[in-house]
Amino acid sequence: MPMEAISSNQMFGGRNQQYSHYSETLTCNMRFAIFLPPQAEKSNKVPVLYWLSGLTCTDENFMHKAGAQRMAAKLGIAIVAPDTSPRGNSVPDDEAGAYDFGLGAGFYLNASQQPWKTHYQMYDYVVSELPALIEKNFPVSDKKAISGHSMGGHGALTIALKNTDKYTSVSAFSPIANPCNCPWGQKAFSLYLGDDKSSWEQYDASLLLQKTQYTLPILVDLGDADDFLENQLKPQSLVDAAKVSNTNLALRMQSGYDHSYFFIASFIEEHLMFHEQYLNT
Amino acid sequence: MPMEAISSNQMFGGRNQQYSHYSETLTCNMRFAIFLPPQAEKSNKVPVLYWLSGLTCTDENFMHKAGAQRMAAKLGIAIVAPDTSPRGNSVPDDEAGAYDFGLGAGFYLNASQQPWKTHYQMYDYVVSELPALIEKNFPVSDKKAISGHSMGGHGALTIALKNTDKYTSVSAFSPIANPCNCPWGQKAFSLYLGDDKSSWEQYDASLLLQKTQYTLPILVDLGDADDFLENQLKPQSLVDAAKVSNTNLALRMQSGYDHSYFFIASFIEEHLMFHEQYLNT
Repeated sequence: MPMEAISSNQMFGGRNQQYSHYSETLTCNMRFAIFLPPQAEKSNKVPVLYWLSGLTCTDENFMHKAGAQRMAAKLGIAIVAPDTSPRGNSVPDDEAGAYDFGLGAGFYLNASQQPWKTHYQMYDYVVSELPALIEKNFPVSDKKAISGHSMGGHGALTIALKNTDKYTSVSAFSPIANPCNCPWGQKAFSLYLGDDKSSWEQYDASLLLQKTQYTLPILVDLGDADDFLENQLKPQSLVDAAKVSNTNLALRMQSGYDHSYFFIASFIEEHLMFHEQYLNT
Repeated sequence: MPMEAISSNQMFGGRNQQYSHYSETLTCNMRFAIFLPPQAEKSNKVPVLYWLSGLTCTDENFMHKAGAQRMAAKLGIAIVAPDTSPRGNSVPDDEAGAYDFGLGAGFYLNASQQPWKTHYQMYDYVVSELPALIEKNFPVSDKKAISGHSMGGHGALTIALKNTDKYTSVSAFSPIANPCNCPWGQKAFSLYLGDDKSSWEQYDASLLLQKTQYTLPILVDLGDADDFLENQLKPQSLVDAAKVSNTNLALRMQSGYDHSYFFIASFIEEHLMFHEQYLNT
């Protein structure tokens, strides 16, 4: 699994870097970003927070805009930000070039329908191939937490709930909490997964959450000035699901905040401190 | 002086906003960004840090990438980020569309040569028109500090040194410290100001600094991995000039850092704390 270095910039005493590599899972070249805190050394492996971005983003948005590296450097946590879909000329895109399906909108699932199935296997990429690559090539431990925003909040929650052995904790900003019941989710799932809605359930955080009582620490932040709140995000479905399964869910509705990176930046340090409690024990 | 609101996002309990307005100084429409900390109220006017960005930037780069709002909210300092040149179809640009002259490259001076003279009056805009607009329309006091990066570091230093009555303090990241003697400066000054080099001196931080003993607090950070250090930035000229005038200059060469926003983000909080000492006294 060779990697090619694309950029490397010192930041808060650590390094913010980008690499490209060929993904066997996605059968295309992929780019990811990694922040290594100053504590990361061969003799001192640090835990990793995986960050899944939202629609239209790449590996860059979070590293440029969230301001997470200050606290990550302080706490000694690496951050890995993958891209949001397979990429390249051979990868099919939405026919109309819509922002909410295809390139930049992989929804962190394994597509079962053609022409998407060949490349759109973001679930396996994030859960298996990418962590193996990271743990082989960087001074990081196998302690992992996961977080994300919007489509990436959906990805973080579903991936963590399906892999409680792999992640110490999960958090999300403004997640698409019940994709089976919102326009973004219904469009993506029907195309990637087909019409059999029973195959959708494994990728719906609210449907997963109501089935089992989870002990995994879960933190979710939303802004009450978010334009997507009622139509796309549906946070109440998560609250209701946690009640059904008697799972402890910390869901906070933050007054005045919207769907932007200005919101993420305002609370990302609290999310890092939340994860640090479980990553460093 | 009417203004039009373009965007408003809550951030760290304050608000990150953009406005457009017609500039009589630049004879075109201009956009600026402002961060108002939560302390800013009609009954509690807060001081302002003006941030001048570098080549190719707009009013957005700093607000999106520097991570300054966390500390600005904590200290109760507003931040105002103007654009880097006049804008619009009527504004002439570099003939070849170069990044280092014309649009996005106003160099914070008053052009004396046509066709630039009509619009390229960024010095007057930043020193006079913009602060008057800000102080009229927002809950801010007339206490001002100024900072900037690269071309904007040049702008901040020259503007502060020429207006020590207007600014409590100045800082800069990776400034073009001696533009009369580097390719970026020589290109811009010869076109904006003409061939008479005596007219260039008022816009050269090193030439200004060597003339007078300043009591203005000055902080400058550079990275020793900055690719532009030797050819364009020439920080030693500032050190030498401060020695000649016996001015107290805090210039720090930060090991391993480059010219990017990853560098700015790593030290912007220290710059805010530096300015806060003088803004709030």
